[in-house]
Order: sequence, then structure tokens, then C-alpha cells
Amino acid sequence: MEKWSCLNCEMIYEPDIYFPFCRQCNSPLIVWSKKKGRRFDLSRPSCLEKFKSFLPLSRINKNLLLGEGNTPLIRLFRLEKKLEAPFPIYAKNEMANPTHSFKDRGTAVVIQKAVAGQIKKIGTVSTGNMAASTAAYGAKAGLKTFILLKEDASFEKTLSTGVYGAHLISVKGDYGGLFKQSYEIGKKIGIYFANSCDPYRLEGYKLTSFEIYFQLGQKAPEYLFVPVSSGGHLVGLLLGFLELKREGYIRQLPHFIGLQARGCSPIVEAWEKNLTDIIPVKNPQTLAHAISNPSPPAGRLVLKLLYQYGGQMIGVTDEEIMRAQAELASFEGLFCDPASATTLAGLKKWRRLNPEVKPREAVLVITGSGLKDLSPVKERGKISLIPVRLPCLEEALVSLAL
Amino acid sequence: MEKWSCLNCEMIYEPDIYFPFCRQCNSPLIVWSKKKGRRFDLSRPSCLEKFKSFLPLSRINKNLLLGEGNTPLIRLFRLEKKLEAPFPIYAKNEMANPTHSFKDRGTAVVIQKAVAGQIKKIGTVSTGNMAASTAAYGAKAGLKTFILLKEDASFEKTLSTGVYGAHLISVKGDYGGLFKQSYEIGKKIGIYFANSCDPYRLEGYKLTSFEIYFQLGQKAPEYLFVPVSSGGHLVGLLLGFLELKREGYIRQLPHFIGLQARGCSPIVEAWEKNLTDIIPVKNPQTLAHAISNPSPPAGRLVLKLLYQYGGQMIGVTDEEIMRAQAELASFEGLFCDPASATTLAGLKKWRRLNPEVKPREAVLVITGSGLKDLSPVKERGKISLIPVRLPCLEEALVSLAL
Repeated sequence: MEKWSCLNCEMIYEPDIYFPFCRQCNSPLIVWSKKKGRRFDLSRPSCLEKFKSFLPLSRINKNLLLGEGNTPLIRLFRLEKKLEAPFPIYAKNEMANPTHSFKDRGTAVVIQKAVAGQIKKIGTVSTGNMAASTAAYGAKAGLKTFILLKEDASFEKTLSTGVYGAHLISVKGDYGGLFKQSYEIGKKIGIYFANSCDPYRLEGYKLTSFEIYFQLGQKAPEYLFVPVSSGGHLVGLLLGFLELKREGYIRQLPHFIGLQARGCSPIVEAWEKNLTDIIPVKNPQTLAHAISNPSPPAGRLVLKLLYQYGGQMIGVTDEEIMRAQAELASFEGLFCDPASATTLAGLKKWRRLNPEVKPREAVLVITGSGLKDLSPVKERGKISLIPVRLPCLEEALVSLAL
Repeated sequence: MEKWSCLNCEMIYEPDIYFPFCRQCNSPLIVWSKKKGRRFDLSRPSCLEKFKSFLPLSRINKNLLLGEGNTPLIRLFRLEKKLEAPFPIYAKNEMANPTHSFKDRGTAVVIQKAVAGQIKKIGTVSTGNMAASTAAYGAKAGLKTFILLKEDASFEKTLSTGVYGAHLISVKGDYGGLFKQSYEIGKKIGIYFANSCDPYRLEGYKLTSFEIYFQLGQKAPEYLFVPVSSGGHLVGLLLGFLELKREGYIRQLPHFIGLQARGCSPIVEAWEKNLTDIIPVKNPQTLAHAISNPSPPAGRLVLKLLYQYGGQMIGVTDEEIMRAQAELASFEGLFCDPASATTLAGLKKWRRLNPEVKPREAVLVITGSGLKDLSPVKERGKISLIPVRLPCLEEALVSLAL
């Protein structure tokens, strides 16, 4: 039978989708397994089928798949040259997922579990990528879907979630309280709130690690740069590599470098002060909205795991993020959101701090698309449109093309 | 040596990227080949490598790839049920491409050719998906990139192209004249304008057909529904299936159903009147901007090919398009643009017109993401946000969840 465990205090629990947290330390729980001898089935088209042996799923219901995962790993040749990096830099492009963010991998596993468990109602607390992802998979599965939004969520952003037919509820009140209450109410009335650190979401994120392992020719990257919001994504990626190690596929884990925006960086601040837990941020101020999480539920766990496995947290400013976003687009053709751009900004900062280290390779996890929020590009103000009358077009092009 | 030909009047030409049109009938030219014995190399990760044998490329330069293609084919189980369709309906999800549209397959081949031919400057005439795609691949390849926009192109849309660092030029004047002049100026000053019907773009679109063939278990779909703008995409898809037939992989071609929006449907109108060429539309009026092309360069060719191979053109209204867009999102979790939604709207209309036909299967080609233009979703006005205070959340959820 499936068990869940706390990676922080090593307690074992019975699974309870309505309260996936440790009763001792409040850390999010993970699916716990001692199973060994897991196999890959790379001939399968979907990533859930390819890596089923590593997932807590007895079968894959293909009716619920949206084509998640199988995202490209792109080598950033031009940025390597610009940064004079004597090592390969790769981008794992999670924007290629069905709703254009990494969240789809997690939601895909959540939905398998929900439908297998005869659950008819799902929900999430989010204003961004997780809202759209949950609404899309909820639609595909024909479940009633409830998206709880902060009251200041822009109508623009909620449109691209509402289009999937989910119930959108804008909640006036404390966001931390909303997160907590979602579980209490969910349990009472039977709505499975698959929030950011849900154990099945983390199972989905493991698959990214497996794909990177194969895309690099069956090895782990030496350094992995990951944006950190709730902390769930980083923990899921680490779980993936831990399982590869346990199964003997790799000997060394990647060094995980977690990135936050300076304007909302509770885990970075705790890291820098050698604390074992985070202090919630009062006034988050960053344009990297997708990682602007003032009180990350997996904060304590991320700190512990990074200490344990030789990782690190780095904070980057909005200015550094905006520059990195522009560089990824104009050198590599990748238009990602500001949260994703923290990976490049962080790599640059990490190299300044560690000029002597020459990694074998570095992988940047590009978590979401720049299309979902154009305002940072607009604010940067570097894009100019040249107006020309048709008879003067040749002259204009000649002068630009020189 | 490579030759180009006109599928309409069967003339053979020397390749000239600066003028890829037939001097007799103005139809766009295609890459012409009598080569047989082409092979698939499915073990390769990128689609250009998998299908290289079918492409006019002597080698694939991996530095120029962005992870295009390899997009999912999703079965639309819930819509099949809703429509009471006694056959499988699939969506080929081209939104999973690097810049979220099918254009990336074409641009990927264009860029290979440009770099192999030492071309340093590329361009395109577009305000939408092709602009972003060309700018992204131009950035990846380090080429100077010129995007010519209509003067009324919204700043919002140009932002997501400008972010890649391309030169954006807004041209005041006739759009047809701009299209024509782009080639003349390009030839003079050495800018390769890879516009919608460029022969190498069409080579890229062939790969979609090959993928569908394999995803269906090595067979062609009986019906294929494709949005039609310039006509290049449909011609490219047909070329793919023609090559599969010539090589003996399939015996029957799919029936191609081309879709246009009633507010700008020059090819549908010519089809309905049994004309052999289109009459340009004066005042295009549709929210399906991606296919609002008043004078499709491949219009005459599309008409000829559909007559020849048993296809058809169908027009759908904006109302039908908006309904289909909402259905694809809320039943299947696919948030596509209005142009893509013509495929579902068209399938529904085609079934009303042909109630006796029971296809083996139908494939809808979903060409681009709904994220690039949220206004049709906003205008439809069906999305409501329910405001609730935190203490009343349980009550609100109970009433909604019943």
C-alpha cells in the first residue's frame, strides 16, 4: 500500500489528499517507496507511460493525457559564447507543455489519481500557471474544477484560466489563510485541492529529471538551475535524481541552485543567514510573479535538502531578471517569463561568485512562457517600431541592414 | 541539383529564394524531386533529423534547432461523445511548438537553408505567428532579422516579436504591395524574405503529415481539417502525404477540408462558385486574425489541388468559431486561437452537410495558441469571476459544488 513521508522529520503517514502535510513540522509530504528495480519504457509516446514504473500509478488512463512532457533540451550555443562559458549550457524548455508551463506534468499525475479515486471535484489556489494547468486538465477529465484566486488577480490573467470552463472564485482575505482553508473546506465537501506542493504534483516533476538524464546521454547534469516559488518543483526534481541514484543509473546528484527574485526571496534570506526555516516576506515586490511566494510551504524542506545534498540558493534583482529575459530571447529564441529568467541571471551571478569552478555542464529549467505576461517586456521599453511609408521601405531597410 | 516547380502549370525552375513564384501563373513554387527510397530515422530526437531524407537539406545544423515539431496527437474523447461522432476525432497540437504555432516547422527549415547558404539577413511580412517564429529562429541563428508589419498591427502583438531583438518595421501602404515589394527589395539588398508560401516553409509542414502518419499507427487519417490563410500550410501537408504515397507507405490520401472564416474567405467563395482562381476580399472582417488573408498567394493552387485530390473548402462564421474555441477549451483542455477553432467548427458543419458519411477518423490541425490574443475570449463575455470573502468561502463552494 502507498505511504507518504516527511523528508524533513522522516515520519511515515497514510495518504490523505485533503491534508498532505507533516503533522510535526508542516512540511509537504512526498510519496514514499522502497520499491527497487524500476524500468524505463522509452518506446511509449507519453512521458507518464515512459516512466510509469517510477510513478504511484497502477495504470495510465490515456483519456486524461494532454501531451505533457517530452520537452526539448536546447543547447545555448550563442549565450555560451557571449558569457565566455567554457562549458555547455542547456535550457530545458518547459514552455512546450500543453498550457505552456512545467505545472502540466504535476497536474497530469494529479488527474490520474483523482479519476482513479473516483474524485469528481478538483481545485487549486493560484493566480497563474497552476490555475490554467489545473483548469485545462480538469476540463479534459470532465471534472468540476474550482480555482481560488487572490482578489487582486488581473482579469486578463484569469481569462486564460476561465476559458477552460472552471469556476473562478476571487477571495478577499489573507492568502496564507486561503491556502490553509482550501484543505479544510476541500476535506469537508470533497474537493481535492491540488496546490503547489501536492505529493502527486512532485511525482510529475520527477519526470523532468528523467528526461534530462536521457537527453544528456544518460547522465545527470553537474549543475541544475531552478526557479523556486513554493519549493515543490525543486523538491520534485531532486526526488527524480535521487531515484536515479538509488537505482544505480547515476552516481552523483546534480548541484541544485535554487533561484528567487530579491523582492520576494524568503528561502534565499534564510539560506544566507543559515536558518533552518524561512521567515515569511511582508511585502513581496517583484515582476517575477510566478515565483512571488511570500511563505513557501516547502521552504524549510528546501533549506534542509540543499544543505544535505550540496546545493545553494541565490537571489537576483528584477533588473538582472529583465536583462536575462531579453538575452534568452534575443540570443537563443526563447521567450520565457521573468521567473524562468532567474535561472540565467542566477547562473551569471553564480559564476561571478565561483570563478574557479568549471562545471561539466549546466541546465537551466525554463518553467513558463513569456506570453502570459507581456508587461515586463513593455516596461523594459527597449522595443521600438520603426514607421515607414511603402515608397521609403527600401531606403529604410538599406540603412538598417548595413 | 535542387529544382523548384509549379504544381499548377508544371513548369520547372532554378531555385531563387528571392522570387519563389511561377512566372506563368504566380503560384508559389515547391521543391521538386524525383528521388525515391526515402527513409525514416525515428531514433533521432529532432523532427528535422527524423525526416531528413524527405527534406532538401544535406545536413542538419543542430545549433539552429529550437525543439520544433514532435507535437502531440490528442484524441478528443469528450467532444466525440458530445458530438455523437461514431468515429475518433484527434487534435494535432501545434501549440506545443517553440513559439506556440505551426510556423516554427517552416522557419526551422528556412533557417537551415539560410545559414547553409551563408545568408546573413532574413525577414518576413507578418503581424502574427510567422513574425514571432521568424524572429525567434533568426535570434537563435544570430541573423539580422527584419519583420515588416502592417501599420495597424497592435503594439501588444509586436511586443512578443520584438522581444527576440528583430528589427520591427511598421509599413504604411497597401499590404499586397508590401508583400510583392519585400521580394524585390530583398533581392536587391540581400534579405531573404521567407514569407508564408516560401518553398522551404512548405517542406517543414510536410513533417506534420509524417508525424500524424506514425501517431495513427502508420496510416493516413481519412479526413484532415486545416485552417487556410495563404494556403501554404495546406499545400505543405498535402505534399507530405503525397510523398508517403509515392514511397508506398500509404495507398489513400486524406480528404483535405480547408477552413476559412466567413468574414474573409476568398478560397471558399471561389470553391463555391467553381472558379479556378480567387477574387481578393475587400474588407476582411473576422476575429480569426491568423487566417484573415484577403488575397492568399496559394489560393489558385489550393483550389486546383482540392479538386484534384477530392478535398473541399468550408467557411464558418465568427460565432461558430467562438463556440468551437470554447468547446475545445472546456471539453478537451485545449486553448487555441480562433483560426485553429475553425477546424472544429468546420467538422461540425461538414457533418451536417454529410450526415451519411462515417469517416474512419478525423484529425483537426490546431495551428496556434489562444494566449496570443485574449480579446475573443473577453468579447465572448462568458467568463465570470465570483467574488467571495474568506469567511464565506465554504458556503460559496458548497453551493457551486452541488
